[in-house]
Amino acid sequence: MKQENLTALLAEMTLDEKIAQCLQLSPFLFKGAKKNAELTGPVLQEMKLTDAHTENAGSVLGSSSAEDMLGIQEAYLKTNRLGIPLIFMADVIHGYKTVFPIPLALGCSFDRETVRTMAEVAALEATADGHHVTFSPMLDLVRDPRWGRVMESTGEDPFLNSELGKAMVAGYQGDASKLHENKANLAACVKHFAAYGAAEAGLEYNTVNMSTRELYQNYLPAYEAAIHAGAKLVMTAFNVVDGVPATMNKWLNRDVLRQEMNFDGVLISDWGAVAEVINHGTARNPAEAAQFSMEAGVDMEMMTTCYIHELKGLIEANKLSESLVDEAVLRILQLKNDLGLFEDPYRGLKGKSRQTDILTPENRQKSREAGLESAVLLENKQQILPLAETTKIALIGPLATSNDILGGWNVYGDEKDGVNVETGLQEVFSELITVSTDYTAFTEEDKSTIAKAIQASEVVVLSLGEKNEWGGEAGSLATIRLPEAQYDLAKYVQSFGKPVVITLFNGRPLEVKELAEASDALLELWFPGTEAGRVTADLLVGKSNPSGKLSMSFPQTTGQIPVYYNHLRTGRPQTEANKGERYVSHYLDIPNEPYYPFGYGKSYSEFEWKTAELPKQIQLGESLEVKVTLKNKSQIAGKEVIQIYVQDVTATISRPVKELKEFEKVALQPGEEKTVTFELTTEAFSFYNHQLEKVQEPGVHRIFVGTSSENVDTFEVEVGEV
Amino acid sequence: MKQENLTALLAEMTLDEKIAQCLQLSPFLFKGAKKNAELTGPVLQEMKLTDAHTENAGSVLGSSSAEDMLGIQEAYLKTNRLGIPLIFMADVIHGYKTVFPIPLALGCSFDRETVRTMAEVAALEATADGHHVTFSPMLDLVRDPRWGRVMESTGEDPFLNSELGKAMVAGYQGDASKLHENKANLAACVKHFAAYGAAEAGLEYNTVNMSTRELYQNYLPAYEAAIHAGAKLVMTAFNVVDGVPATMNKWLNRDVLRQEMNFDGVLISDWGAVAEVINHGTARNPAEAAQFSMEAGVDMEMMTTCYIHELKGLIEANKLSESLVDEAVLRILQLKNDLGLFEDPYRGLKGKSRQTDILTPENRQKSREAGLESAVLLENKQQILPLAETTKIALIGPLATSNDILGGWNVYGDEKDGVNVETGLQEVFSELITVSTDYTAFTEEDKSTIAKAIQASEVVVLSLGEKNEWGGEAGSLATIRLPEAQYDLAKYVQSFGKPVVITLFNGRPLEVKELAEASDALLELWFPGTEAGRVTADLLVGKSNPSGKLSMSFPQTTGQIPVYYNHLRTGRPQTEANKGERYVSHYLDIPNEPYYPFGYGKSYSEFEWKTAELPKQIQLGESLEVKVTLKNKSQIAGKEVIQIYVQDVTATISRPVKELKEFEKVALQPGEEKTVTFELTTEAFSFYNHQLEKVQEPGVHRIFVGTSSENVDTFEVEVGEV
Repeated sequence: MKQENLTALLAEMTLDEKIAQCLQLSPFLFKGAKKNAELTGPVLQEMKLTDAHTENAGSVLGSSSAEDMLGIQEAYLKTNRLGIPLIFMADVIHGYKTVFPIPLALGCSFDRETVRTMAEVAALEATADGHHVTFSPMLDLVRDPRWGRVMESTGEDPFLNSELGKAMVAGYQGDASKLHENKANLAACVKHFAAYGAAEAGLEYNTVNMSTRELYQNYLPAYEAAIHAGAKLVMTAFNVVDGVPATMNKWLNRDVLRQEMNFDGVLISDWGAVAEVINHGTARNPAEAAQFSMEAGVDMEMMTTCYIHELKGLIEANKLSESLVDEAVLRILQLKNDLGLFEDPYRGLKGKSRQTDILTPENRQKSREAGLESAVLLENKQQILPLAETTKIALIGPLATSNDILGGWNVYGDEKDGVNVETGLQEVFSELITVSTDYTAFTEEDKSTIAKAIQASEVVVLSLGEKNEWGGEAGSLATIRLPEAQYDLAKYVQSFGKPVVITLFNGRPLEVKELAEASDALLELWFPGTEAGRVTADLLVGKSNPSGKLSMSFPQTTGQIPVYYNHLRTGRPQTEANKGERYVSHYLDIPNEPYYPFGYGKSYSEFEWKTAELPKQIQLGESLEVKVTLKNKSQIAGKEVIQIYVQDVTATISRPVKELKEFEKVALQPGEEKTVTFELTTEAFSFYNHQLEKVQEPGVHRIFVGTSSENVDTFEVEVGEV
Repeated sequence: MKQENLTALLAEMTLDEKIAQCLQLSPFLFKGAKKNAELTGPVLQEMKLTDAHTENAGSVLGSSSAEDMLGIQEAYLKTNRLGIPLIFMADVIHGYKTVFPIPLALGCSFDRETVRTMAEVAALEATADGHHVTFSPMLDLVRDPRWGRVMESTGEDPFLNSELGKAMVAGYQGDASKLHENKANLAACVKHFAAYGAAEAGLEYNTVNMSTRELYQNYLPAYEAAIHAGAKLVMTAFNVVDGVPATMNKWLNRDVLRQEMNFDGVLISDWGAVAEVINHGTARNPAEAAQFSMEAGVDMEMMTTCYIHELKGLIEANKLSESLVDEAVLRILQLKNDLGLFEDPYRGLKGKSRQTDILTPENRQKSREAGLESAVLLENKQQILPLAETTKIALIGPLATSNDILGGWNVYGDEKDGVNVETGLQEVFSELITVSTDYTAFTEEDKSTIAKAIQASEVVVLSLGEKNEWGGEAGSLATIRLPEAQYDLAKYVQSFGKPVVITLFNGRPLEVKELAEASDALLELWFPGTEAGRVTADLLVGKSNPSGKLSMSFPQTTGQIPVYYNHLRTGRPQTEANKGERYVSHYLDIPNEPYYPFGYGKSYSEFEWKTAELPKQIQLGESLEVKVTLKNKSQIAGKEVIQIYVQDVTATISRPVKELKEFEKVALQPGEEKTVTFELTTEAFSFYNHQLEKVQEPGVHRIFVGTSSENVDTFEVEVGEV
């Protein structure tokens, strides 16, 4: 449909029809759904929805299948006066039926292409099932592993999150201007605007409190990057931003999002978030919730009914301008048009199934590759890994045979389709004895079974971890430990003196010190998705070589939270020279450093670090070219992530000890050497000053080149005034 | 000296003399000190100080005694050209030689008079030893018990801190306009401006990050209250405020402190904080550190030499206006004049010792009373306390005989003067067996000794706690637990089945769940000061009845930090009705509530709560009168703290679940009933809105009246628009 026709269509709509466009509901509330609500049922009654509402609602949330979409869309178009199709949105977070590693793991891939591919495959499958929009990427910066939703973020770094956010948008949307043609792409929704990841004390839905400068400096960049990459939608956050709920925060949504970031797509609330502003104590009733959210620029309300029941009265009472609703509806119509829904409300699926695009061997292979890129080798003492395929293995632990390896927030994945660790290992190891244990208990009976298994084996593979329900939304843990039974199990297994390899499946950084000490190798697999077992096996036998790097620091203990690499300096930093002195910044009971730092991860290869080449001086506004040469001096092919960090030594605002500004994963054959050239633009040197202007300041800057945030060479560059 | 003479004096001073006025040094650097530095010594060499510097420096930090002050002042005045006396400042934090309970304990007194008395006695003793200024009150709001300096704060509440801050200023200064006459008073220095208590992760000297509104709303009020109560000095904080170190933060010190708060006294840096801005990365060298700090309005530099070495060059190079130095010096001269130093540089101590004012029975008695007001009875199952004096007691634990009961930051206290627990208990109990154990170890030998002691006794008093060095400045703990040995000891002691009373001595909220479960009574004594043992004994036998209330929440576990009572609401609050549901704000592994809430504390009395009387409606700008009637229905005289909290149900900014707005400790004889009338002014209903204006908004407000932040009756008051 042409742009002018959209405006004409809007002009034809009644106020009721327009308001209904702004409503998003679950599929079961619609006619034609696979399983639909009796219109007299309790939910409808509670929501006070009538046929007139559901026959004009703008969007469906989380339909179950192509069949569901087709049934609902067909029934809907029969009664919708102007024939405006529904738009189908869904949570497709890390793959669809082919489940990929959780986003936190994908962050550890440090690989844009891996992340783009995940999104592309997810789009291919989700569109085959009738979805038009995914509520991804989630670009909340996270520093607190108590928060369950860290599993859904790519980590603690603004730059990494930005780069991977852009890659996800590219993968989902393809060419954003051609979504009407490219029916295997879907529209991306950036969430949660803004700063949801900073929930205080890691407590879900809790207050967020930070300076506006900190918001601009570290929390907004990844959203902005994805928006500038063309993401079609943005979702509001549940939290307050400076005391006002994000969903009715006019400054945040009108000034920052719409004006400063130039976002003109659809802004949708999170589930129920419009009504929840009443709980926050910033609206007295649904009418105020509707008014304030609409004034703040929220176009679509998810699953509550403040808009549908209140907007008309507000407009009639002259409390709200109808033009705001017009704006919102026009954006929604625009999105539907961008997706080609007016021409084809079924996006190619009417009478033409694309189910064969789902769970294909190719998709599974891509998931497997993503898992391989994302796993992080934390320990490998005496190069115990990789193992020969002929090694007699005792596979022990709760994750040995668990199918709970897809990770949280996989709405459409099916554990049946997943390959668990035992199955994966059976495919490569000729001799394998499995002892499956409970997640939370370690019994005397376990002990004797385990003893026998270990005695009959050469190496123990201990598969430990979390249930996915211990993380994700509303999965906050006050203490980031596994159940004590698993630590006890690790110590027991260690007592036999045979090599122990721990494979860890989890959704957040955990207290792993005891596991690192109780094992010879510690392999962080996160939740790898559908191919979990094969990913594990590939890495254990060296068919693939670990190349993941932590995208979130692992604290020494829960009490070190938040600990993150890009922290500010203090006036009394602890240094090698003053260690042991009282009046320096330190804890009495733990080191200052995290247990494993950001950017850290081992390989089976040994890379020789060759020094970087870069000028000693540049001028303000000039880019800095950094040439880095790396050699694989081992006999094993592998990949290493070159990481470039910057520090502004002196500025008008205290700047972090270091900040990631570039990275590249490089594949090197045995003996191979490669030179990579990075260009750090002024963006890499800029920050928000006291007046919230983004500036670059002259003076000495440190450039750190290395393979983790801690393992770096340091260079100094003078940025001269022009 | 008259005001005009001060200006004339300033005009006579050379630039060098003026700059030297802004320097504060340790006593040993001065001639005439009891123990002075060789002028060729390493410190002086490092600091590059000459005779000209020390002969003109403005102030002495922490002299040891009246003798020290007299010696230094006399020698100084012999060489100082204009005869401007030195001012002697010191850390007198919770008493002087008569040590009072630590400030966090004093916060728990919820009693303004107790706190005022502490400061009055401290002033009496400190002035007798030649001090003119104390670096107290410390009014940093604290929510993170990992931070060691929580012991130095009165707690987590802006209103309580404000009230007790004012009381401290009143106690130290008396009538601030008569400090030149009242030589038993000294000037108070409010610290640390600003928000030092919010050091991230409880890590000492760490970054502070909060919204400007949060700073105004919760962190600034206590400083402001003490400043408006006439405090003569303010000290800068070590931390950054919005990315700029407090010590060079022009916005903070010029705009907020000087202009908005109208502070015209002396602003002094914390120890070394001027030079430390270089470490923060906001100044390149000492010259910039000096320039930026002077521009920010810091009058006096403590223990570093940026001013003394750099200001002159800056002025000569026209980088800094001499008028800024003039301003600073005039404030310093003014302070000296306020203290009457020009008329009497010795403040009455020349040839007239006041040593008899120190450690008097009266002072000790006041310390003892403060300890009694500050102790908090956390548990008292089956009213096991108070104990009869005839009870056979086994006194066990590391604190049984330890003299480390004065608390940190007592510079002039002497453990020899303190009464430890054993001594205190021996004075009341006729039969007492003591087993002293280690703080960090619990041995097999201990077990057998303890077993014998318990078998011969009726009740166990287990004295557990921290060494004071585990808290205080640079005493950050990642995990707020006692050494595991003490928990083990408690469980062992419990196993005998005799009643166990735990008396706890510590400087921060700790993980006490296991202690509460292993005992029949749990009495939080903090570090009670000189009379610690007698305070303990008085409470155990009921000579005194506990009346303290927690001024800081006790978390369930370290991983719940920060947990504080006056938190904002969320969109998905956990309620009694929805407990057990997934998608509400909660942890999977602990309750949302703290283990012990703010305002909580038991008594041996039983108070009958009679409902409060208050109107259902007031107008904007009107005060609210609340009449509360309380009855002691037990046979034991006691004190209860009536606490009034307010919630603005709906506002333009999300407001906390409740905020303390009034409190009063009421003493009630057996059977006695009292009515207390509180007046809540508009101040109690006001908050900072999005534009940082302090406003009161109309609408429904909840008034909570009770005896802890959790134990309250709820009333609703409509605040109507005028």
